[in-house]
Amino acid sequence: MTGPVAPSRGALRPVGPQQVRLAGGFWGRRQQINGAATMEHSRTWEDRLGWTGNFRNPLAERRRGWEFSDSEVYKMTEALCWETGRPGGVRHDEALAELTSLIGGAQDADGYLHTAYGRPGQPARYSDMNFGHELYCAGHFFQAAVAGARTGAAPGLLEIATRLADHICVQFADEGFCGHPVVETGLVELYRVTGERRYLDQAAKFVARRGHRTLPEHEFGWQYFQDAVPVRNGEVFHGHAVRALYLAAGAVDVAVETGDDELLQAVARQFDRTLARRTYITGGMGSRHQDEAFGEDFVLPSDRSYSETCAGVATIQLAHRLLLATGETRYGDIVDRVLHNVIATAVADDGRSFFYAHTLHQRVPAEPPRTDREQLRFSGGARAPWFEVSCCLNNVGRLTASLGTYFVTEDPGGVQLHQYAPMRVEAGGMVLDVDTDYPDAGVVTVTVVEAPPTPRTLTFRIPEWAAGPEGVHRRVFEKNEQIRLELPMRPRWTFPDPRVDALRGCAAVEVGPIVMCAESTDQEDGVRLDEIQVDTSVTPEAGAVKGHRVHPADPGWPYQSHRTATERPDPVVVPLLPYHRWARRGPSTMRIWLPVNPS
Amino acid sequence: MTGPVAPSRGALRPVGPQQVRLAGGFWGRRQQINGAATMEHSRTWEDRLGWTGNFRNPLAERRRGWEFSDSEVYKMTEALCWETGRPGGVRHDEALAELTSLIGGAQDADGYLHTAYGRPGQPARYSDMNFGHELYCAGHFFQAAVAGARTGAAPGLLEIATRLADHICVQFADEGFCGHPVVETGLVELYRVTGERRYLDQAAKFVARRGHRTLPEHEFGWQYFQDAVPVRNGEVFHGHAVRALYLAAGAVDVAVETGDDELLQAVARQFDRTLARRTYITGGMGSRHQDEAFGEDFVLPSDRSYSETCAGVATIQLAHRLLLATGETRYGDIVDRVLHNVIATAVADDGRSFFYAHTLHQRVPAEPPRTDREQLRFSGGARAPWFEVSCCLNNVGRLTASLGTYFVTEDPGGVQLHQYAPMRVEAGGMVLDVDTDYPDAGVVTVTVVEAPPTPRTLTFRIPEWAAGPEGVHRRVFEKNEQIRLELPMRPRWTFPDPRVDALRGCAAVEVGPIVMCAESTDQEDGVRLDEIQVDTSVTPEAGAVKGHRVHPADPGWPYQSHRTATERPDPVVVPLLPYHRWARRGPSTMRIWLPVNPS
Repeated sequence: MTGPVAPSRGALRPVGPQQVRLAGGFWGRRQQINGAATMEHSRTWEDRLGWTGNFRNPLAERRRGWEFSDSEVYKMTEALCWETGRPGGVRHDEALAELTSLIGGAQDADGYLHTAYGRPGQPARYSDMNFGHELYCAGHFFQAAVAGARTGAAPGLLEIATRLADHICVQFADEGFCGHPVVETGLVELYRVTGERRYLDQAAKFVARRGHRTLPEHEFGWQYFQDAVPVRNGEVFHGHAVRALYLAAGAVDVAVETGDDELLQAVARQFDRTLARRTYITGGMGSRHQDEAFGEDFVLPSDRSYSETCAGVATIQLAHRLLLATGETRYGDIVDRVLHNVIATAVADDGRSFFYAHTLHQRVPAEPPRTDREQLRFSGGARAPWFEVSCCLNNVGRLTASLGTYFVTEDPGGVQLHQYAPMRVEAGGMVLDVDTDYPDAGVVTVTVVEAPPTPRTLTFRIPEWAAGPEGVHRRVFEKNEQIRLELPMRPRWTFPDPRVDALRGCAAVEVGPIVMCAESTDQEDGVRLDEIQVDTSVTPEAGAVKGHRVHPADPGWPYQSHRTATERPDPVVVPLLPYHRWARRGPSTMRIWLPVNPS
Repeated sequence: MTGPVAPSRGALRPVGPQQVRLAGGFWGRRQQINGAATMEHSRTWEDRLGWTGNFRNPLAERRRGWEFSDSEVYKMTEALCWETGRPGGVRHDEALAELTSLIGGAQDADGYLHTAYGRPGQPARYSDMNFGHELYCAGHFFQAAVAGARTGAAPGLLEIATRLADHICVQFADEGFCGHPVVETGLVELYRVTGERRYLDQAAKFVARRGHRTLPEHEFGWQYFQDAVPVRNGEVFHGHAVRALYLAAGAVDVAVETGDDELLQAVARQFDRTLARRTYITGGMGSRHQDEAFGEDFVLPSDRSYSETCAGVATIQLAHRLLLATGETRYGDIVDRVLHNVIATAVADDGRSFFYAHTLHQRVPAEPPRTDREQLRFSGGARAPWFEVSCCLNNVGRLTASLGTYFVTEDPGGVQLHQYAPMRVEAGGMVLDVDTDYPDAGVVTVTVVEAPPTPRTLTFRIPEWAAGPEGVHRRVFEKNEQIRLELPMRPRWTFPDPRVDALRGCAAVEVGPIVMCAESTDQEDGVRLDEIQVDTSVTPEAGAVKGHRVHPADPGWPYQSHRTATERPDPVVVPLLPYHRWARRGPSTMRIWLPVNPS
C-alpha cells in the first residue's frame, strides 16, 4: 500500500501508511484525536450545512454552500480513507460506503461530476473557469479515490474517478484549465494508480497552459489565478498562496513522471526563493488577507499576518514531493517547521475547532462571537468550529491521517528519517522503533528491531538549527542495537533579515523546531505585550527571557522629533510558550517577535 | 454665499467661496488644473462608461456601473458647482443645466431617485441596505444640490433634492439606515439651506440608529458598516475608514445643530485617538486593503499601506467641522498634513490620473498595465486615469474646487488663517492679501487691504512642528500694514511611536508639513532602497540625508541566529523628495521610513 504521493521515479521512495505506525507522542496523539473527533465533527457539519446532501439531491432547487463545497466532502472522504487504512486507525467503512454511493449517484452519464452546474436552473458546466472550481473539485475527488484505492477503504471511488477523468480528458483535450489548481496532482496520482497515461498527459497540459493570461480578466489579476507567468518561467511563488503551492506540487508530479528536469528545477528554484523571502518564521506562507496571496519579497508583517492553514498543508505536500524527487533532506526542515508551528497551531486540543489564518501578533483579545454566523468567520485570536470556507480542517484532517508517510523515506540503500516521532518504521529493509519526546526534547533513540546482514544506511535529517550531529550511519546493523541522535534544544535568539521591514529591531526565541511566543495570559500582572523590550544579550531560557518594561508616552500624534525614551525602569521576566499552544486559555494578546532593547 | 459646510452655530464661522480667492501657489495651481482638466476628464469617463447615461435611460435593460455610480455623477456635479461658483473659476453652466435636467428626469413621481432599483427587472428599492448605496447616493446628491443652490450655479437641483429628502423622511421615519453613511451630512446641509427641520431630524435618526447591529450580518462584520457600536459610545474610529469618517462628520453636524455636546465630544474623542494611534505620518487613514478599514491601534505597516484618497478627503471634512464647532485650531494641523501628503499625492500634474490608495513603501516598480481593464484597477506605484470604483477623483475634485473655504474662518472678533497659500481673504471685517510660497517656504506675509478702525484679531494657526511664533495678533490694523509669520522649515528627523511595530528602527524626514521620501529614481547608481541605513545623528538637509549602504546576506532562510552585520562599508547620500512628488517620473521604488543605522 502506498500513501498520498507515489512517484514512479525519484531519488527517494515514499513509504506507505502501513510502514510507519505513530506510537503516541506529539503527532500520534493528534492523529488519534483527528481520527476520533475531527472526522466526526467534519461529517456532522457537512451534513448539517447540506454539503453532503447536495449529492443526494443534486436536482434540488436550493443547492447549499459555495461552488467548492463538493471538494470538502471529497477531502473529508480522503481523510476517512487514510484514517481507515492506517495501522491503529479508526475504521470508517460504513461512512465510506455511504459516501461512495452518494458521490456516484450524483455523477452524470458522461462522467461529469459536480453538484452546482449543468442541471436545470444551474449555471452551465464550465461557464466560469475563474471561480467555478469544477476541476478543482475533481482534483480533490481524484485524491480521495486514490486514497480509497490504495488503502482499500473505499475501492468503489476509483471507477467514479476514472469516468470523471475520462470526461475531463475529452472536454479539455485542446484548451482550458481551472482557476484553482489541484486537478494536476489528482490526475497524476490517478495515473499512478491506474497506469492510464492520458491522465498524466492531461495534467501536463494543464500545467503547460497556465501563465499565458488566457483566463478571463479579473480584479485580482492573473497572478491570483496563477495565469500571469508560466510555471516554467517563474522566479518565485506569487498570487493566491494555496493555488501557487498546489500548482507547484502538480508541476513536480508532472516533471517527475515525464522526466522534465527543467520543470522540476523551475519549481525548486521558486520554492527556494519563496522560503528565503516570502515565508514567516512559522513556515506559514501568504501575507495578504485581501486575495490570500503572497506579498512582495520581505513583505511579512506580523500584524494581521495571513498564513492560511491550507497553505501550510500545501507547503508540506510540495516539500515532500521535492524531497522524493531530489533526495535533498533539507526539504524536511520546512515540513518540520510548518508542522510544529502552523498545523499544530491550527487545531484545538479536542480536534473540534481551528484557525483558518495564523496571525503572528494578536494585539487585541478576541471577542467572543455573538451569532452563529459570526462564529463561522471567527478569526483573529480564536479557533472556530467551522468556516463558510472550511477547507482548512479537512485539509488538516487528510494530512494528519496520512502523516507517517511524510516522516520517512527509503531507497535501495536504506531508510531516511525526516521527522522525529515515536513510531515503528518498516522501510529500507529494516524494522526500527523510534523513541523520542521530540519536539519537547532533542534525543531520538532508534532501536533496530530487524535488519539484514548486509550494510544498510540509516539517515537522520539534521535540521538547519542543529549543526553538528552526524546524520548518516552506514553499516551492518545488529538486532536490538540502538542509534542515538541528540539534537540541541537550547533556546536560541533568532533575528530577521533586515529587509523584512516590519520586524526590524525585533528578535524571536526558537527551541528546536518550535517558535516561541509571549502570550498575555502568562505575563506578570499588569505588563502589557506592547511595553516589553527584551535583552538579547541574555541567553534565553525555554520558558522565559529577560527584558524591561518601557512606558510609551501617549502624545496626540505618534510621530515625534524625539525618540521615545528607552530608559529601563522595570526589569521584567517575559514568560514564553510554544506558539502552537497560544489561544488555548481564553482570549489573549500574543506576539512572536519581541522588540529588542536598543541600548 | 456659503461653502460646503455652513453650521448655524459654533465657535468659528465658515467663509464662503467668494471670501477666499486662491492666487496661484501650490493649491491655486492645482485648483486651476482641477477646474480646467479634471472635471472634463471626469465627465468624459462618466459619459463613456454610461454612468451619466443611466439617468437618461433609467429603464434600459443594461444599466452600467456599480450600484453607487449615481453618486459619481453627483460628486462631479457638486465639483462643477463649486468650480463655477468660485472667483476665477471655470464656469460650467451648460453642463450643470444638462445634468440638472438629466437627474431630474430620472426621479420617480414619489421623489425616489436612483437608477439601479425599483424599475422592471431591477432589484426592489431598499432591498439591500448593506450594499445598495441608495441613501449614500442621496447624500451625495444633497451635497451637490446644496452646492448648486449656494453658488447659484445649479439652482434647479434643490427642488429635486427636497422631493427626494421628503421621500426619505417618509420612507425612513421609523427605521432603517444605509450601509454607507453620507446621507447624514447631506440632510443637515439641506436643512441649513432650506430650513426644513425634518431633514435635520431625519439625519439625527440615522446617526442614532447606527451601532445596534440591525443591518443584516455580513462577512466583513458590523464594524465595516459602522453598525457595531453607537457613535455616542465609540472610543476610536473603526471599520471601513470612509464610512467611519463620513458618519463622524454627519454626527458633528447633527450635534452642532441640536446642541448635543455629548455627541460632539464623543466624535472629538474618537478622532483624537484615531490621530494618535491609527493614522499614517502622511495623515492617511485606513490600513487594510481587504475591507478598506482601520486596523487596530498602531497597525500601520508601510508595506501595502492603504490610506485611501477618499479617506483623506473625509478627514479634512471632519476636521473642518470640528474646527468650526470647537474653535480649536489644532484641527488645522491634520488638514495641512492630509492636503500636502495625501491629496497632493493623489493627482497627477495634468489632473488626469490618480492614486486610489497610497502606499508608504513601494518595493517593486509598477508594471505598466497591459489591458484597459488592468489600467482601471492600476494601483501600487502608478496613478491611473480611472477606476471601476472611481470615488477618489470626484472627491478630490469637489474638495479642490471649494478648497479656499477650508483655509480661513472668521468670528465676531476677527479672522483665523488655518492654511497658508497666496490668497485674497475677505473675512472678519477685514480684507487681507496673503503672500507665501508655503509649503516650499515658511514665510507668510499678510498685507492689510482693508480694516476697520476698531481692534480686530488676526489668528495664525501655528503647526505643532513649529513651536515658537506668536499666532494671535489683536489690535487696530492699518491699511497696507504687513504682518509676517515665519514658520521654521528646517528639515527634521521624525521617529515613530514604538508601538507601531512595523516602523521600529526607522526614521522619516519632514520639512514643514511635507513628508519626504526616497525614490529609486534619485539614488546613486546601483544603490537600492532596501540597502540604505541613514544616520540620524546628522541633521537632514531638505534634499538629502547621509547614510550607509549595507549589503544584506542572502541565506536560504531569512531568520538566523546572528544579526546581519551592520558594518558600514559605503557611505552614501540618500536624496529625498516630497512624498507628493513621487511616481511622477516613471516606475520606481519608494520609501518614506528609512532604516536607521543602529550603531
